[in-house]
Amino acid sequence: MTPISHQIQLLRRPTGLPAQSDFTLKEVPLPALQEGEVLVTNQWLSVDPYMRGRMSEAKSYVPPFPLNGPLDGGAIGTVQVSRHPDFKVGDPVSSMLGWRDAFVARGEQLTRLPATALPSQLFLGALGMPGMTAWAGLHKVARLQAGETLLVSAASGAVGTMAVQLAKRAGARVIGSTGSADKVAYLKTLGADAVINYRETPDLDAELTRLAPEGIQVYFENVGGAMLDAALNNMALHGRIVLCGLIEQYNSNGQGSGPRNLAQMIRKRLLMQGLLVSDHWQHYGEFLAEAIPAFEAGLLQAEETISEGLASMPQAFIGLFEGRNTGKMLVRLG
Amino acid sequence: MTPISHQIQLLRRPTGLPAQSDFTLKEVPLPALQEGEVLVTNQWLSVDPYMRGRMSEAKSYVPPFPLNGPLDGGAIGTVQVSRHPDFKVGDPVSSMLGWRDAFVARGEQLTRLPATALPSQLFLGALGMPGMTAWAGLHKVARLQAGETLLVSAASGAVGTMAVQLAKRAGARVIGSTGSADKVAYLKTLGADAVINYRETPDLDAELTRLAPEGIQVYFENVGGAMLDAALNNMALHGRIVLCGLIEQYNSNGQGSGPRNLAQMIRKRLLMQGLLVSDHWQHYGEFLAEAIPAFEAGLLQAEETISEGLASMPQAFIGLFEGRNTGKMLVRLG
Repeated sequence: MTPISHQIQLLRRPTGLPAQSDFTLKEVPLPALQEGEVLVTNQWLSVDPYMRGRMSEAKSYVPPFPLNGPLDGGAIGTVQVSRHPDFKVGDPVSSMLGWRDAFVARGEQLTRLPATALPSQLFLGALGMPGMTAWAGLHKVARLQAGETLLVSAASGAVGTMAVQLAKRAGARVIGSTGSADKVAYLKTLGADAVINYRETPDLDAELTRLAPEGIQVYFENVGGAMLDAALNNMALHGRIVLCGLIEQYNSNGQGSGPRNLAQMIRKRLLMQGLLVSDHWQHYGEFLAEAIPAFEAGLLQAEETISEGLASMPQAFIGLFEGRNTGKMLVRLG
Repeated sequence: MTPISHQIQLLRRPTGLPAQSDFTLKEVPLPALQEGEVLVTNQWLSVDPYMRGRMSEAKSYVPPFPLNGPLDGGAIGTVQVSRHPDFKVGDPVSSMLGWRDAFVARGEQLTRLPATALPSQLFLGALGMPGMTAWAGLHKVARLQAGETLLVSAASGAVGTMAVQLAKRAGARVIGSTGSADKVAYLKTLGADAVINYRETPDLDAELTRLAPEGIQVYFENVGGAMLDAALNNMALHGRIVLCGLIEQYNSNGQGSGPRNLAQMIRKRLLMQGLLVSDHWQHYGEFLAEAIPAFEAGLLQAEETISEGLASMPQAFIGLFEGRNTGKMLVRLG
């Protein structure tokens, strides 16, 4: 173990799609451990679309990443040295100190993982922020009911795969949208009743009408753009739209186009609500109480797209916007 | 009294802004009265933006108007002949049988006006559908609280003037937006704390930031377009947007542009909900119990823009989209 942390830093704020050259890998010496602090080495780094927002200077729900300083994000690691009474060597912990291989932090910055034999990296994906996001969107925002029709965009992503499975468990009919034949096939194995490959569907509006002639009660929106227009046209009376992500716009510098048919919101008295998981962590225990036993029993599945080594993190991140992941995008450290 | 009804009919479906030549005035003989029927002459015809939607063929919450048949809409009239036990000659009644000077209908198609000395045409405006729309939007959808900041677009219209006044009565701080200096002055007499003349405000976004530095909790949206973009940027955390009208788009044949910054919905966890008054009529008594005494006591005011004679109805209707009305647009019949 070295007293050095390797970490990815942001060199400049990306314009449009981020590029490898916007990032740099730095070596930073770690400070000596103070009382109450812990030294952790990371095994898994979370790669998430929301990080794009923090690379811009714009005001958002979290402050922008600094230039020439450490980026952060979800990470799973192991305690190597502890001067905190709650943590001992070998403890698996999660933190928001990702984009780096090692760090020193106060014990309060760490969360002990729940006791389970499930792979620890699930707590970055299906059992972590993306899974909790799907659960909160379906159950706390949309209040999905059995028998309703749900549409999920980016259905093969980390949030989408959980939204599909949790909705099926809740008795809904589920239509997914994704961008490749492989992903269509994968979503069908997860139980999706119908899956649209949006890249090969020239008329999304007509396809949704065909698949949901009675209308869509809940739209779980991760993308924006043409799918949102098509969904608005096909929502049922009093339908609910959970606005979870608009990944199509994240690299557009505010020049993306919005839905042309917002008048459907009035005609059909739709409700649209923005979702951030941070409003819902008080229900995390409720989610885990459902999801951990379901994973242990094989009733929920999680796909992961794994990139190897800290240096691969920028490319893994850029890959999110190119649809290169199925399920949770992760970086594994050696 | 003649057994003839003069009525405005739609000759063709307008493209963009409706034109006088899209309409025609027809004479139609009235049928002989059957048992249970009533003959009514109208004194006041309601002129409303929502009627534009019914002139198109597109599916909406109400069926499209037929071509070469009578248009309809709110009207206040007087019973001339009655073969229905609940109505007698001289009774003032409201109906949805507007755009015409006289009609024969079943008694069930009529509503007796509440007993009050207030002018009967108020029941087409401030005490009718537009007033009830404002009340339901503020109290049933947005759940406006005392001390919150409300923004109202088209604030000098029939719905807007009531939204401004009802919100002030509820203890909110009210910012209105309208399109002329006269309307700005009028809104200030209604108690608006600040009024924007959007035609003379080059940077709506900055102006809203100046007027609501702590953010807008509730936006009562009647317009769409640039004001919706500016409002989204200035909403407070967990703000609510009541989507009541998008008058800027009604003549755009679905080619209007939507908000470019819907991501603000996620960042600030906003709620946007489409409002149609038809979902809320069960609360009409509750609204009238507040609003009738307030009008009688001079605590609420209603402005009317009155056009004379049935033949003026198409021009009055077109005038709605040119901002020619302050308060409720009405046609008075001789």
